Amino acid sequence: MKVGGRHYRSIWRNAQDGGVEIIDQTLLPHRFEQRRLANLADAAEAIRAMQVRGAPLIGATAAYGLALAMAADPSDAALAEACRALMATRPTAVNLRWAIEDVRRRLEPLGPAGRAAAAFARADAICEEDVAINRAIGGHGLGLLRDAWERKGRAAPLNILTHCNAGWLATVDWGTALAPIYLAHDEGIPVHVWVDETRPRNQGAAITAFELGAHGVPHTVIVDNAGGHLMQRGAVDLCIVGTDRTTASGDVCNKIGTYLKALAARENGIPFYVALPSPTIDWRIADGLRDIPIEERAADEVSHLAGRADDGAMVRIRLLPDGSRAANPAFDVTPAALVSALITERGVAEASRAGLATLFPDRAAAEGSAA
Amino acid sequence: MKVGGRHYRSIWRNAQDGGVEIIDQTLLPHRFEQRRLANLADAAEAIRAMQVRGAPLIGATAAYGLALAMAADPSDAALAEACRALMATRPTAVNLRWAIEDVRRRLEPLGPAGRAAAAFARADAICEEDVAINRAIGGHGLGLLRDAWERKGRAAPLNILTHCNAGWLATVDWGTALAPIYLAHDEGIPVHVWVDETRPRNQGAAITAFELGAHGVPHTVIVDNAGGHLMQRGAVDLCIVGTDRTTASGDVCNKIGTYLKALAARENGIPFYVALPSPTIDWRIADGLRDIPIEERAADEVSHLAGRADDGAMVRIRLLPDGSRAANPAFDVTPAALVSALITERGVAEASRAGLATLFPDRAAAEGSAA
Repeated sequence: MKVGGRHYRSIWRNAQDGGVEIIDQTLLPHRFEQRRLANLADAAEAIRAMQVRGAPLIGATAAYGLALAMAADPSDAALAEACRALMATRPTAVNLRWAIEDVRRRLEPLGPAGRAAAAFARADAICEEDVAINRAIGGHGLGLLRDAWERKGRAAPLNILTHCNAGWLATVDWGTALAPIYLAHDEGIPVHVWVDETRPRNQGAAITAFELGAHGVPHTVIVDNAGGHLMQRGAVDLCIVGTDRTTASGDVCNKIGTYLKALAARENGIPFYVALPSPTIDWRIADGLRDIPIEERAADEVSHLAGRADDGAMVRIRLLPDGSRAANPAFDVTPAALVSALITERGVAEASRAGLATLFPDRAAAEGSAA
Repeated sequence: MKVGGRHYRSIWRNAQDGGVEIIDQTLLPHRFEQRRLANLADAAEAIRAMQVRGAPLIGATAAYGLALAMAADPSDAALAEACRALMATRPTAVNLRWAIEDVRRRLEPLGPAGRAAAAFARADAICEEDVAINRAIGGHGLGLLRDAWERKGRAAPLNILTHCNAGWLATVDWGTALAPIYLAHDEGIPVHVWVDETRPRNQGAAITAFELGAHGVPHTVIVDNAGGHLMQRGAVDLCIVGTDRTTASGDVCNKIGTYLKALAARENGIPFYVALPSPTIDWRIADGLRDIPIEERAADEVSHLAGRADDGAMVRIRLLPDGSRAANPAFDVTPAALVSALITERGVAEASRAGLATLFPDRAAAEGSAA
């Protein structure tokens, strides 16, 4: 999407020399800087230090990391070492593993001479596939936004609440939850987005607010506590969030706090949509509460917070008294019953096994018989 | 309650010379420092700068401010000016107005010679009344905690979630929501408190965590997003919060985010208690959503946050991109239907007009007939 009037992706090939470029997201929202990934070490460090984040973008960066490694040394040993180094950057990232294995499987049968070109081609294709999936999610979600605006009598604005960041900076472009919003804005529907700041890591206040502001989408940042009040008062027309993992029955595991907003949406009769690329559906599990382990992250994400001091320096501050413990569950599970619909690249489905089966009959049948 | 093993109130008379002392709460949780209020100007500044906060404590400080003013100049003109100066510190604080009018009404009939002593005596009495009310709330709430612990088969710990700060530092001593917790802890019930950090002003992470830690009560700070997840997973046995204003029908207006926790508590079958001194009941209004205007506070409470940098300095940082707006509704309304019970100084009542009338038949009848 746009920054300063120019179109960007979150990772791209330099038009002059084909080099790989990213946006250093650790500096957002206060500085917008590009970084050149010159070699495998740069790619691994970008993932490890979270200069790139978001499952699709991590996968794409890893694919380019392998390509850069092959350009330097296409031997079997170098390929194995590059895969190992990249996997170690964020061991729990499912997309990271998927992308590395996908590229490795394609490179191993090739002779060393063809590996670099094949890896770059595959990394490029992974990016294009991600963009196409997100654009399709956006198109399907756009239909829901158009309907909501019609129901509102085309009264401005159409108020949408989102949690965390499921935008273009978490993917290669468009994002998932934000894709319908960008499309609606671009076609002239007067959207306004309530952006949950999304403690502890504040991806809403930092990344989502940056994305929307840079693209010109009206938005207002709120603390995570405020959404229920706004829904009670009629200030939210619908909610759209992303998901890290979705069960075959439509339970949604997303950033901590999603569940509270879904409860408030149901209580106030407000649609609560979840946007997702189908690879995030885990067809093997049905009960999200029972089957999805919740990652407990470091307590210092709760006890400390970083931002820009008045003098422009980035500073990390402590919020808690010395001696007070903090707990940091990173995700929660929103039961399918609270989800109005799932927005996928194939269309909009009821959040249920039957709903998903209508869009993905092949997957649902294969896994259903395997289970 | 205790800090470093010594018992404190949030405002007290120095045992040597009768001077008025407070704790500078703007420095919490990182520094625990006392301040001497030497004169009217000190008292007004303490309220204005939020060195003291919380309705009961603001009222008590204002009463002492009038006493200090009378000690310097007991004339009618000085009394009027002192009332004006104190009212201007936090114009919307109901307890501030109440305390100033209460003291003024008692002083005006007196000759100047008796005013200082009378004002100090009344300020002392206001403090004692607050302590007695909170101690009574604590006793009634303790019964609920004992019952919950019995229901849990005396399995440790009894997990209690609280939001914001309704503790001794918001009152003169004990607090409201925290009073039952202190009593339970002191009698050996193994309580553990989940402390919502309570963005935007972080009174939970700063003040509640400090209070509990200083008194030795086990606690864990969580982001406001986490409570729903913990309730879903059985990690919360009950919730207790305070309230800024309660309607005659039991609707509760409390710090923003309270409503979301009440929704999650009901969804998961967890008791949700609200502790309150009866003066916070507004007998004239019934429908909290309709009748309670919600204060919109400054956006910079959302866009910025202060804390302690690694070098020990207090630093304020910006969290949002330049150009992004923030909204900051300070309170929300939790409908009575979501409140399991109200804990008052007269006992525990159902959150309804009938429930409150059983405890306060005089007030309910008087206002009911006036309405």
